[in-house]
Amino acid sequence: MIQSTMQSGNLSLASLVDYSRKSFPEGKVRTWTGSDFRDITFAEIGAQGAQLAHALTAIGIGRGDRVATFMWNNNEHQVVYAAVPAMGAVLHTVNLRVSPEQAVFILNHAEDKVILVDASVAPMLSGYVAEAPGLRHVIVVNGPVDSFTAPDWVTVHSYEDFLAGHPTTYDWPDDIDERDAAVLCYTSGTTGDPKGVVYSHRSIYLHSLTATSTTGLGMSNRDTMLAIVPMFHVMSWGLPYAAMMCGATIIMPDRFLQPEPLLAMMEAGRPSLAAAVPTIWQGVMGQLRTAPQDISHLREVIVGGAAVPHSMIKAFDEFNAPITHAWGMTETSPLGSIARPPAGVDDPDEAFAFRVTQGRFPPLVAGRIVDEEGNELPWDGEASGELEVSGPWITGAYYQPDGNVSAPDKFRDGWLRTGDVATISPHGYMTIVDRTKDIIKTGGEWISSVELENAVMSNPVVLEATVIGVPDAKWDERPFVLAVVAGEEHADIEAHKAFLADLVPRWQIPERWSFVTEIPKTSVGKFDKKAVRSRYAEGGYQVHGKPAGE
Amino acid sequence: MIQSTMQSGNLSLASLVDYSRKSFPEGKVRTWTGSDFRDITFAEIGAQGAQLAHALTAIGIGRGDRVATFMWNNNEHQVVYAAVPAMGAVLHTVNLRVSPEQAVFILNHAEDKVILVDASVAPMLSGYVAEAPGLRHVIVVNGPVDSFTAPDWVTVHSYEDFLAGHPTTYDWPDDIDERDAAVLCYTSGTTGDPKGVVYSHRSIYLHSLTATSTTGLGMSNRDTMLAIVPMFHVMSWGLPYAAMMCGATIIMPDRFLQPEPLLAMMEAGRPSLAAAVPTIWQGVMGQLRTAPQDISHLREVIVGGAAVPHSMIKAFDEFNAPITHAWGMTETSPLGSIARPPAGVDDPDEAFAFRVTQGRFPPLVAGRIVDEEGNELPWDGEASGELEVSGPWITGAYYQPDGNVSAPDKFRDGWLRTGDVATISPHGYMTIVDRTKDIIKTGGEWISSVELENAVMSNPVVLEATVIGVPDAKWDERPFVLAVVAGEEHADIEAHKAFLADLVPRWQIPERWSFVTEIPKTSVGKFDKKAVRSRYAEGGYQVHGKPAGE
Repeated sequence: MIQSTMQSGNLSLASLVDYSRKSFPEGKVRTWTGSDFRDITFAEIGAQGAQLAHALTAIGIGRGDRVATFMWNNNEHQVVYAAVPAMGAVLHTVNLRVSPEQAVFILNHAEDKVILVDASVAPMLSGYVAEAPGLRHVIVVNGPVDSFTAPDWVTVHSYEDFLAGHPTTYDWPDDIDERDAAVLCYTSGTTGDPKGVVYSHRSIYLHSLTATSTTGLGMSNRDTMLAIVPMFHVMSWGLPYAAMMCGATIIMPDRFLQPEPLLAMMEAGRPSLAAAVPTIWQGVMGQLRTAPQDISHLREVIVGGAAVPHSMIKAFDEFNAPITHAWGMTETSPLGSIARPPAGVDDPDEAFAFRVTQGRFPPLVAGRIVDEEGNELPWDGEASGELEVSGPWITGAYYQPDGNVSAPDKFRDGWLRTGDVATISPHGYMTIVDRTKDIIKTGGEWISSVELENAVMSNPVVLEATVIGVPDAKWDERPFVLAVVAGEEHADIEAHKAFLADLVPRWQIPERWSFVTEIPKTSVGKFDKKAVRSRYAEGGYQVHGKPAGE
Repeated sequence: MIQSTMQSGNLSLASLVDYSRKSFPEGKVRTWTGSDFRDITFAEIGAQGAQLAHALTAIGIGRGDRVATFMWNNNEHQVVYAAVPAMGAVLHTVNLRVSPEQAVFILNHAEDKVILVDASVAPMLSGYVAEAPGLRHVIVVNGPVDSFTAPDWVTVHSYEDFLAGHPTTYDWPDDIDERDAAVLCYTSGTTGDPKGVVYSHRSIYLHSLTATSTTGLGMSNRDTMLAIVPMFHVMSWGLPYAAMMCGATIIMPDRFLQPEPLLAMMEAGRPSLAAAVPTIWQGVMGQLRTAPQDISHLREVIVGGAAVPHSMIKAFDEFNAPITHAWGMTETSPLGSIARPPAGVDDPDEAFAFRVTQGRFPPLVAGRIVDEEGNELPWDGEASGELEVSGPWITGAYYQPDGNVSAPDKFRDGWLRTGDVATISPHGYMTIVDRTKDIIKTGGEWISSVELENAVMSNPVVLEATVIGVPDAKWDERPFVLAVVAGEEHADIEAHKAFLADLVPRWQIPERWSFVTEIPKTSVGKFDKKAVRSRYAEGGYQVHGKPAGE
């Protein structure tokens, strides 16, 4: 046996902050103000981050302590992203869109001592703080301190005053172990309490490196990335750290997440990349149809968080802004797979067939599909089973203050059970056909609710649609469609059934439909099937003839 | 303190081999036969690699045992690259171009038990084996077994027979620690015995990931890489592993390294990337001037191993095959820095000033410059000092069978002392001005031999030139130029001095010149300044008027 002569080389965010400041001092983050950008350079982030680290140290924050944020995507959030893990503390990004009960739950569960809050959402946080007795310091960013009403055990600071007078350099520790905790994020699960995932310096470093790799996003020094996906949701898909690694410019929308301001910031900033969930892009496309604008500066539009409707890919192709579909979860940091056609596939139609899959696993993610007994299934594009993944940025447990838990229904032999049902082609392209719990079991056969949704939505008059299984006396379950259509005249079940006749097997065509003005969505913009089920599963779905609520 | 919930995720070449076989089964390696390519797919490499692993196991090769290669860049060498580290053994790539004494030294020092040898170089190896008593098995590749003459304690196998009958799948171990030894390579140092560097699974994995990153080479599934740099020299700059990671096609020149066959394989394979040392590209450009050919399919020509003459960058620009200059050493895996202009620099002249530097450090390499006492110097583009680097693919020691050694003159506080003298600009662009031992100290001032060489070579009549310091009674040292010129009439010292008058300070203009037909080079194609010094330092350099040897 011989020993490697290589240095150990610590994968630490402390070294990343230092690297970005020295190698890309001119790199910048740009936050939209509603009419323009306010910029901060990576050199300034390094300096402001040093001040923040000193200020946090001064109020007693040390190794492993949680520092929470309740903030939009903006310059100051980027400073917190840089400084908190680099000083050895743990950044906890709180989702602005969870329910008050969930917010209180995670503030307490994470044992947050200090939280930075954007003034625009400070009133919302004020309502939770009395029930989170561990919180001692609230730092108000981008607005007046009096936007926050605090119990008397909480000290409220303004961000500027908090930083003022502290040195603009900090001797970032070089003894952080790469497997130490760096960022804590809770899943916005639709069932049960939110579950915490703790990313390590190692996991974030490797994920960022892959974001700059052609096996990931291929982000470079020459890119400008519009990071629409919130920093409170899986670290904005890792984009803030990836930008620091490669010196990309990053555009932060702050609270301006509606189609019009998004298009205004695209016009002003001309991003080469952009990342968001499908519902955001649906809105942007709607606005583009009304007020066309050149968006061909986008060399790639990254869409994840939910399946991309085929029609959306085609619509963006028309605008020369090609969509690349990626799959992931809070538990997977999130990059789990990405759908770029393989080398040699240049014909648009042939390429399209690959672009609508969830794509290939990147090198650091191992994936497999298994049957209900856990037996591995072949990569033949036919067999479908639960998707399981493993790798250095995949969670192996959920966070508990008294010891992380690895629940048997969520993990199997070191693999994360994703709850998705998928096929994998002989060339490694994974296609999610459904959630394990959303598969519709009818007369001994399975219907993929995802495929049926896609078929329903391929009708141009359908704006949105979701499909769930509902109890049926004869067939056990039958599909039920909840749809938003483009006008009362399209709320016609027979017309929709006729449309489907060429697209899906006859036995899959749903009998039960309901037309509404909006489909319930979760805090991260996905269809909330739990809410749909609780309202429609037991009946009431024979509504038709006109959109509900009209 | 809270614990990360992330999985450990082992960075192992076993998982890489498995990944490439499953995700890029159609990816391929193409070896030039002299007139065409013979291809092998990644799926076939996985299968043949499994057979090789079984066969090596059968002759007693286990964890940590060295398996040597004495081979050109070809399909079979790629199979060995995949299988040997993946099974937990250590690949030792022996340089075909070292002296017999050095070859014998490293075979014994590495304690190689088995070696795979290309038939074309088998006679050369035959001469060494009697002096390497540890060798027990020789496997002859790409030719008849009788090309090898062995002592009676050595068993000689043909590659095909060695593999035949073994299963085409192998249960690659999942318990290799990422810091375990994977590949052993000796530096072809110009002084002293060769020194061994042992790359780990971790170092190779991270280096490969960076090769696929925009912070490195940006290699992708859609690239075809012509890997001219030998697999016996710093793992062909890591290209074989990077190709497996991203599914790039790789073209192997085998023994056909002359300009004509290199251009023939470019025409046939239309690579998008190519990598070699400057002397190779000098030859290719010479041939292109004689027989022009479209090489604009090369989106990037990677040049490293020695400084790139400015004139070479311009010549390749004319052919629309832009050169990207990278810096590294055997000790740095080798990627140490890469010279891409920063974002926003689009003017060709402005960009050129960045392209001729050694470039920026990638995220995983930390670099600094220090004075003779080890004090860190500023990144101001002015201060010059010895370049030191650290990171997970930088060596921290040299290999010794009885324990790796970290010689104090080669390492300082965990940093590798490169022996290069460099400046670093405020934006992180590093420029090597000389080797510490090549700096010319004259009258209390320093002359960079590299800058002076560039100035001399910017004269179109100079084909090659090197500069060393030679003793001088009055000034301690003065520069001496050894040059190859384009015809006897250009061997005119006064004309060359006049040419330099506008380019370098007057006191730097050399008085001593010699014109020869060829400059001595090392086994890896660099100017052999040691040989130049031993021949010219003590006199004999006043030769002029015509090229020596005419």
